[in-house]
Amino acid sequence: MYLRSVDISTEYLNYIVSEKKMKCDCDFVIRDNPRLVAHYDNCRLLWNELNPGKEYPRNNDGTIKLLNKHLQELKVDILYHLGLDTQNYDLPAIFGDVKFVCMGGTKYRMRDFAQYIAELLDLPEKNKKLVNLTKHSQRYAMYKAGPVLSVSHGIGVPSMTTVLQEVIKLLAYAKVKDPIIFRIGTSGGLDIPPGSVVVTSFGLNGNLGKTFDIPVLGKTRQLPSILDSRVCQEVHSLSVDNDDFGTYIGGTMGADDFYIGQGRLDGPFCDYTQTDKMTFLNTLKGLGVRNIEMEANAFAAYTRAAGIRAGIICVTFLNRLLGDQVTPNKATLKEWQKRPMIVVGRYIEKYFEDRKM
Amino acid sequence: MYLRSVDISTEYLNYIVSEKKMKCDCDFVIRDNPRLVAHYDNCRLLWNELNPGKEYPRNNDGTIKLLNKHLQELKVDILYHLGLDTQNYDLPAIFGDVKFVCMGGTKYRMRDFAQYIAELLDLPEKNKKLVNLTKHSQRYAMYKAGPVLSVSHGIGVPSMTTVLQEVIKLLAYAKVKDPIIFRIGTSGGLDIPPGSVVVTSFGLNGNLGKTFDIPVLGKTRQLPSILDSRVCQEVHSLSVDNDDFGTYIGGTMGADDFYIGQGRLDGPFCDYTQTDKMTFLNTLKGLGVRNIEMEANAFAAYTRAAGIRAGIICVTFLNRLLGDQVTPNKATLKEWQKRPMIVVGRYIEKYFEDRKM
Repeated sequence: MYLRSVDISTEYLNYIVSEKKMKCDCDFVIRDNPRLVAHYDNCRLLWNELNPGKEYPRNNDGTIKLLNKHLQELKVDILYHLGLDTQNYDLPAIFGDVKFVCMGGTKYRMRDFAQYIAELLDLPEKNKKLVNLTKHSQRYAMYKAGPVLSVSHGIGVPSMTTVLQEVIKLLAYAKVKDPIIFRIGTSGGLDIPPGSVVVTSFGLNGNLGKTFDIPVLGKTRQLPSILDSRVCQEVHSLSVDNDDFGTYIGGTMGADDFYIGQGRLDGPFCDYTQTDKMTFLNTLKGLGVRNIEMEANAFAAYTRAAGIRAGIICVTFLNRLLGDQVTPNKATLKEWQKRPMIVVGRYIEKYFEDRKM
Repeated sequence: MYLRSVDISTEYLNYIVSEKKMKCDCDFVIRDNPRLVAHYDNCRLLWNELNPGKEYPRNNDGTIKLLNKHLQELKVDILYHLGLDTQNYDLPAIFGDVKFVCMGGTKYRMRDFAQYIAELLDLPEKNKKLVNLTKHSQRYAMYKAGPVLSVSHGIGVPSMTTVLQEVIKLLAYAKVKDPIIFRIGTSGGLDIPPGSVVVTSFGLNGNLGKTFDIPVLGKTRQLPSILDSRVCQEVHSLSVDNDDFGTYIGGTMGADDFYIGQGRLDGPFCDYTQTDKMTFLNTLKGLGVRNIEMEANAFAAYTRAAGIRAGIICVTFLNRLLGDQVTPNKATLKEWQKRPMIVVGRYIEKYFEDRKM
C-alpha cells in the first residue's frame, strides 16, 4: 500500500533504493507537484506489487519488451492494419523518436490533432501537409508530428484494440523509449455540463465490472481496467486553472453498443422504460462514472497489460441524465472536440519544454 | 417444424391459407428452385413460430415497424453517425426506392461496390462520381446506386452495430419495402483454400455460443445469431456453377479481438501455445464454422431482431489452420475482395432482372 502514497517510511525507502533491480525508472513529466502519487504504475518499483506473478514488460532502457514468445519465430511481422511490416520498413529510423501516441475515433480529428501538435511544438511539420502513414491499409489513419503519433481507431473496442495492438508492436519494433499513449475522444456525460472534459481513472464494462472481458480460446478472461493514477493526476493538474470548461477525474463506462448498450431510448430496439434507464444511469453515477463512451475499458486493460502508461481524455457532448440525442450544432461540437486536444497538448508541451527539445 | 420443409400436408396448408392474417408475404428472389426452404424467416407465416411472443416488426405493406415506442415521442430523430435526420431530410424521397443494403469494412471497398452495382444494373449512376452521403458525420461512408445502398461499417461489432442500427431506422423512416441487408467482408478461413467465399448460416460468439451477447442496463442479454436459411441457400445456389473459387455455406465466428480473440499467435499478447490454438480452431471446425471475422454474430442478431432478411458473404484471406498472418500481396487481396461483390451482385441482378427494373 505504501506504493500508492507519498508517505513512505524512510527506512523502507532506503531498503528499496538499495535494491538495484528495484530502482525507480519513472521519467516524470510533472516533477514539482508533491500532491501526485509517487510513481507511475509501470515503474519497476511497483510492477510486482501491482501485477503479481506477471513478467515485467519493459527492458532496462525503457523500450517495450513484447512478452509473446511466438513473435521471435516470425521472420517478418506484418502489421496488416497499419500497412507496415518489419522487413520493408526501417521502423526504428521512421518511428524511433516517438514519445507520445494519441488515438481517437476519426481520421479527420487525428489529422487535426497532429497539425495542432506541429504548431504547438513549433515542429518543421507545421508547414507541411501531413501524410497518412497507413494509407495502404485503407482501415485507419496515422500521422506523425515529430515525436507525436496521431492514430485513428474507429468506433468501439474491437476496432480500437486491433490498431492499438499493432501500435504496441510498432513501438516495440521501433525501440521507442517510455512511450505514453492517450485516447482523446467524445462521450456522453453524467451529471456534468455538456462540453466538460473527463480524465478517466478507471474503465467500467457493460456489466458494471472494472474489467475488460474478452473470450480467448472459448473462455472469457477478465483484464483489470485501471488507468495510471499519476498520469491521470498530472493531466488534471495542468487543466484546472485557466480553462473555460470544467475538467473532471472519474470512471468511464466503455459500452459495447451505442444504443441499448448505453441505456439509450432512441435506438431501433428498446423494451425498457425511462425509469429503467434513469435507474441505470444513477447506478453508474453512484459507482463514480462521469462519462460513457465505447473504448475505455479495453484501452485501459491493453495498455496496462503492455506496461505502457496511458490516459483517456474525453469531452462530453451531452448530459445523459437529461437526454440521449446529440443536439448541439456542428460548429459547437467541433469547438468542444478541441478540448481534449488542448488538455493533452498542454501535457505534451510541458514534457518537451522541460527537456528543451 | 413443417415450416422449415417443403413437405407440408395439403390439409394443413389449406388451413394456413384460410387464415387471412397468416398469409405468406415472402417476395421470393429465387422462385424456381424447389430445393430451397419454403419461406424466408421473416415471413408473416413463420414469425410466431420462430419468435414466440415477439411482436411482428413489419407493416402490411412490407415496410419496417420500429418496435421501440419511445421513438414516437421524438419530434426529430437525429441519425448522428449517418449525418442525417428526420427534419431536414426527406428520407422517403431520397431513400424510398432502396431494396438492398450492402455493408462492409472500408469506405473504399463500399465505394467500389456501389460503382460495380451501377455498372451491373446499368444505372444512370454508372457515369457519375458517387457522393458519400454521410460525409457530415466523418465516421462512416454511404453511397447510393439506384435501389442499392452501400455502407461502410468499420471493424468489429460495436462499430458495425452503431451504423447498422441507424440504417435500420433510416429504412423505416424512408418507408422502404422488404429490404435485404448483406454484409460483404473479409475473413480467415478454416480448412478451405484462401480466396474461397463463405455464405454464413449462423454466427458464433467467442464463447462458442450461437448468440450475440450484449450487456443492457447492467445485465447480459443473449440474442439468437442465425441468418435467414432461404437467403443463404438462394445466394449459394447462384454461386456454385461458373466461379473460379469455391463457395461454402457454414458457420462464422464473430470475434471481439483480432489477435487473442481469434486464437492468433502473432499479437503483442499471447500466453497460450500452438497446440492450444489448434485445439481451439479444430473445435470451431467441429461446430461447423468455416470462417472467422469480427461482426457476424451481432449482424445476424440485430437484423433478425428487426425482422429484416440478411446475409453475410465473406472471402477468406488465409487458412487459419496453416497460419495467422495475411501474406498474399496487395493485388491478390484486391482481386479476392471482389468475390463477395460478384456473388452478391449476381443475387441483386437476378432480383431486378425478374422484375424488369
